Amino acid sequence: MKGILFVLSGPSGTGKGTVCDELIKRGCGVSLSVSMTTRECREGETPGVTYHYVTKDEFKRNIENGEMLEYAQYGENYYGTPRSSVEEKLSEGMDVLLEIEPQGALQVKRKFPEAVLVFLVPPSMSELKRRLITRGREGEDEIDKRIETARWELTQAEKYNVHIVNDTLDECVDRVIEYFDEKRAERKKIEELINEKV
Amino acid sequence: MKGILFVLSGPSGTGKGTVCDELIKRGCGVSLSVSMTTRECREGETPGVTYHYVTKDEFKRNIENGEMLEYAQYGENYYGTPRSSVEEKLSEGMDVLLEIEPQGALQVKRKFPEAVLVFLVPPSMSELKRRLITRGREGEDEIDKRIETARWELTQAEKYNVHIVNDTLDECVDRVIEYFDEKRAERKKIEELINEKV
Repeated sequence: MKGILFVLSGPSGTGKGTVCDELIKRGCGVSLSVSMTTRECREGETPGVTYHYVTKDEFKRNIENGEMLEYAQYGENYYGTPRSSVEEKLSEGMDVLLEIEPQGALQVKRKFPEAVLVFLVPPSMSELKRRLITRGREGEDEIDKRIETARWELTQAEKYNVHIVNDTLDECVDRVIEYFDEKRAERKKIEELINEKV
Repeated sequence: MKGILFVLSGPSGTGKGTVCDELIKRGCGVSLSVSMTTRECREGETPGVTYHYVTKDEFKRNIENGEMLEYAQYGENYYGTPRSSVEEKLSEGMDVLLEIEPQGALQVKRKFPEAVLVFLVPPSMSELKRRLITRGREGEDEIDKRIETARWELTQAEKYNVHIVNDTLDECVDRVIEYFDEKRAERKKIEELINEKV
């Protein structure tokens, strides 16, 4: 039985990374896909674990050869998900988890309509703003820009399979795991029917 | 707020028509889309209610003009869903329900990625076969063909938003309505966030 491709996405500041870390910590039976990037490896990061680090030429060659399931450019650098490693894991029966930006998530859905897209929803826009301010990565102008981007991303949310509100982390992660299990049960039922002799 | 396009589909014999009739009977707040066909109007049918009846030339013109959300040819005749009437209802805030074959459902999803696709699952293949025999519309060869088609359709089920098993009608309809309400709650939350000033 082929694995399921789960994609966790949502506006910047909704807590994708934290939810994803917690999912892995709890051992919910998904293999995290390692992204590819052209940016430099920073201290504390491990090649092949944090990212696959490649040159711009290599990245562009991957795009041209249709090797990227999704990719985006931020500033000078490219970030993306190589198709081959995901498909390899899926064909071995492993469920794979991607944690990516909404634009990337919709690219994946177009190329891979059987992907299961989870949209993480902030409890409110004021809470989203508060989280962006608290994490302190962006200035005020950049935060306003992110809020506007979030509004646009919310208009795309209906293309996802399910919405899960990230109010308190534990409840959100519980719900994500419950949803993963629902999808696995669906898959198992379908597999049984396909194989049932009549 | 725009309405939601719900698509109810599943293999022949799974009970799409019966579930759909029951949904309408219970008044679950969806407007049933009327399909277009080139076949003749039969006794007991009402034009504009059972189907929109058109000539083959008219139907083909609609296809060429991109007016069909989905269509298929069965034997001599065309069947399909006109885009304009669906979009009109959605833009008026009405939720619309389409009851169509799996091939049509996936056509809709490609053209309308925000459509919510419900896959009706038979409890077992032997039960599916029993239902096809009981309704008595097809001969033995045709039933075997439908079972093989069903197996293929099951391989496409992961492209749907949700799977619901149709074992007993009442429980199945309850679950469909519950799911519709979940999607409406998601939509409402998104709408609130988009409109929230910060």
